[in-house]
Amino acid sequence: MEAALPRVVIIGAGFGGLACARRLANQPVAVALVDQNNFHLFTPLLYQVASSLLNPSDIAQPVRTILRGVKNVRFVQACVTGVDFAGCVVHTEDGTELPYDYLVIAAGSTTNYFGQKAVEARAEGLKDLPEALGLRNHILRCLEEAASAAGRGADPRPWLTFVVVGAGPTGVEYAGALSELVRGVLPREYPELDKNGVRLVLAEGLERLLPAFPEGLGASAARELVERGVEVRTGRRVVDVTPETVTFSDGDVLPARTLVWAAGVRPSDLVGAIEVGRSRSGRIEIDSALRVKGHSKVFAIGDVAAAEHEGREIPMLSSPAMQEGRAAADNILRAIAGRPLRLFRYRSRGSMATIGKGAAVAKIGPLKVSGFVGWVLWLAVHLYFLIGFRNRFAVLVGWAWNYMRSDRPVRMLVRAREPLDSDKR
Amino acid sequence: MEAALPRVVIIGAGFGGLACARRLANQPVAVALVDQNNFHLFTPLLYQVASSLLNPSDIAQPVRTILRGVKNVRFVQACVTGVDFAGCVVHTEDGTELPYDYLVIAAGSTTNYFGQKAVEARAEGLKDLPEALGLRNHILRCLEEAASAAGRGADPRPWLTFVVVGAGPTGVEYAGALSELVRGVLPREYPELDKNGVRLVLAEGLERLLPAFPEGLGASAARELVERGVEVRTGRRVVDVTPETVTFSDGDVLPARTLVWAAGVRPSDLVGAIEVGRSRSGRIEIDSALRVKGHSKVFAIGDVAAAEHEGREIPMLSSPAMQEGRAAADNILRAIAGRPLRLFRYRSRGSMATIGKGAAVAKIGPLKVSGFVGWVLWLAVHLYFLIGFRNRFAVLVGWAWNYMRSDRPVRMLVRAREPLDSDKR
Repeated sequence: MEAALPRVVIIGAGFGGLACARRLANQPVAVALVDQNNFHLFTPLLYQVASSLLNPSDIAQPVRTILRGVKNVRFVQACVTGVDFAGCVVHTEDGTELPYDYLVIAAGSTTNYFGQKAVEARAEGLKDLPEALGLRNHILRCLEEAASAAGRGADPRPWLTFVVVGAGPTGVEYAGALSELVRGVLPREYPELDKNGVRLVLAEGLERLLPAFPEGLGASAARELVERGVEVRTGRRVVDVTPETVTFSDGDVLPARTLVWAAGVRPSDLVGAIEVGRSRSGRIEIDSALRVKGHSKVFAIGDVAAAEHEGREIPMLSSPAMQEGRAAADNILRAIAGRPLRLFRYRSRGSMATIGKGAAVAKIGPLKVSGFVGWVLWLAVHLYFLIGFRNRFAVLVGWAWNYMRSDRPVRMLVRAREPLDSDKR
Repeated sequence: MEAALPRVVIIGAGFGGLACARRLANQPVAVALVDQNNFHLFTPLLYQVASSLLNPSDIAQPVRTILRGVKNVRFVQACVTGVDFAGCVVHTEDGTELPYDYLVIAAGSTTNYFGQKAVEARAEGLKDLPEALGLRNHILRCLEEAASAAGRGADPRPWLTFVVVGAGPTGVEYAGALSELVRGVLPREYPELDKNGVRLVLAEGLERLLPAFPEGLGASAARELVERGVEVRTGRRVVDVTPETVTFSDGDVLPARTLVWAAGVRPSDLVGAIEVGRSRSGRIEIDSALRVKGHSKVFAIGDVAAAEHEGREIPMLSSPAMQEGRAAADNILRAIAGRPLRLFRYRSRGSMATIGKGAAVAKIGPLKVSGFVGWVLWLAVHLYFLIGFRNRFAVLVGWAWNYMRSDRPVRMLVRAREPLDSDKR
């Protein structure tokens, strides 16, 4: 009798929510997995979509396909707007109500503009698929605009000046990939443009790159980026923007049509819409069994949850989200069975960032590697996880092939006549 | 001295314009190839993008990539708004002016709603990439809406009723592909939906399918579609639509959320904006050397041109467009050399349409084939042309693999927060 099974609602089909749902597969619970999108996104490679190397379908897979054949998990595409903790019901935008016995909040994170409205209005984010596609389209359009400017005798350089803000892994990886895209494609396909007119700037408010990595690796990444023609500006923040310029905290004003914002992420807006305690970073306060404080049947995991490790909040990454997802699932099953919950302990898997072909930095346990060795390691890890994720050998072959020979096949500027989410009906 | 070379402007980088530009490569002319998109689209496989089998990049390639290394052809991304025939200048939306000594109009065609505003506002077209992506998103959304309706006890069937209007090759191919998509994916991934609730209707105002094909092949296509669960309604037009219904000329009212309009195409709007003679079908009147009547240095080719063969206008297909493109290029070179122009003669290459896996109809010269033999032929021809087009073995392997095992990998409902062509700057 499925109706009699305890109902678990999981909000979010990212790394955390999906790991939780998978752990609950074929267990004595009735799971509803809710996400506003119908796909799970392999976000670590999102920057490759934004730099024209991968197709969206290479890193996104329908949730229903992932859960094919799992009878006790159903997928609900809906945007969650709130939670009635007293009534144990999740509310969605289209009016659907999802009652639960146990709830897992895994709503993820979004680009953080730190309240800078001018930046938000102008910058390109790089946190979800529409942002990545928007950024890709914008870069491709800049190249055409530069060609057009050159054709009529105007200055193409503002169109060829690209400012990436934030030197965490996303900013570093995108700066490297963008350099490969622009410097690879421009000389071959834009004979009307002078490749010396291209300028790539990676700006970071702190004094070094990759602040979450050991210092040596940040320096190594900076060296590799400079070698690839990226200007690295540390210790300077972006303080003002206009449609045509970017102003830095040292007073420098750069004419640039592109501002990529990779300076940070913050928990999903849902966290602000529900009554929960929040840490200074805006994440949900939880106990050591991952339960939301004050709600014994509600769990929070991943980017929305203020889980701690060695006295600090765990970074917003896929690996802890997946560990927490599995731990929350186990604790729900324990609670149902009347057994004591287990405390969550994070195991760091290390971290890595690629700067471009033949260069990456990685820290795995006590091991720190950079350069070519780091890159081979990065490739191996991502091939492994992507194979697990998509299992499409042909896609991998094509990807490796294009990556090796610097081709960037996915360069169509798709112009929608209307928002793709609009519905005529 | 390139400045002294005769200037050729080609409007449109479709099959005709591109064939013309390729023929003029490395000839003593300075060519500007103008298109509003930065890519060439392999339109014969557009329906596979709209049915979640192919990625956009599998059938679209940047024009600059295709023309890599061709020094005398430059690409201009711009939307042409008019032509000043007296001043020999092409005008574009962004104000760029392109002077020419010879002009080739190859602006292609667009979906023809025959003036039915209600249909245009509601229906999904299938003629360019944004339309194909919009249609794909719409179908995927219908499946989720049906699941949602079923979840709250409402009737899911209007969301699972798909009406395709027009039984030319596009309508027939899409009806077959949509049947494979919906009937392949639904039972595996939508356990909450009854697969008997799915209804696919192919409606055609004439009495038979594929009017441009020999009669036997139309009947064969109808049989194959019925076998695949498609209702074929001939001799009935769509006379009215509301957001939730489609009304046919025999009075039948079908509750359906999807109306795919494949009932016809018409020449690009540019043709109406310039001063040229037009045939009854709205195509540009040309002489037998492909010159626009009254303009000795202006050529028109492909879908916009009213070229004739055996007393009838040549259909709007890629093969005649390419033949005309090459012929126009040759005539421009002859005119420059002071030699007499050559009359254009169309050589029919036959025509084919696929109904689904294992079934296609084809007419090549006196040969008429259908069923599995037709399908193998169709596959061979498309593999051949696609290899020529993309030369990406891995893509082909992935495509063939997914096609064989009925997988539909490209099913992300990408929701843009803003139109993808919008620019914040």
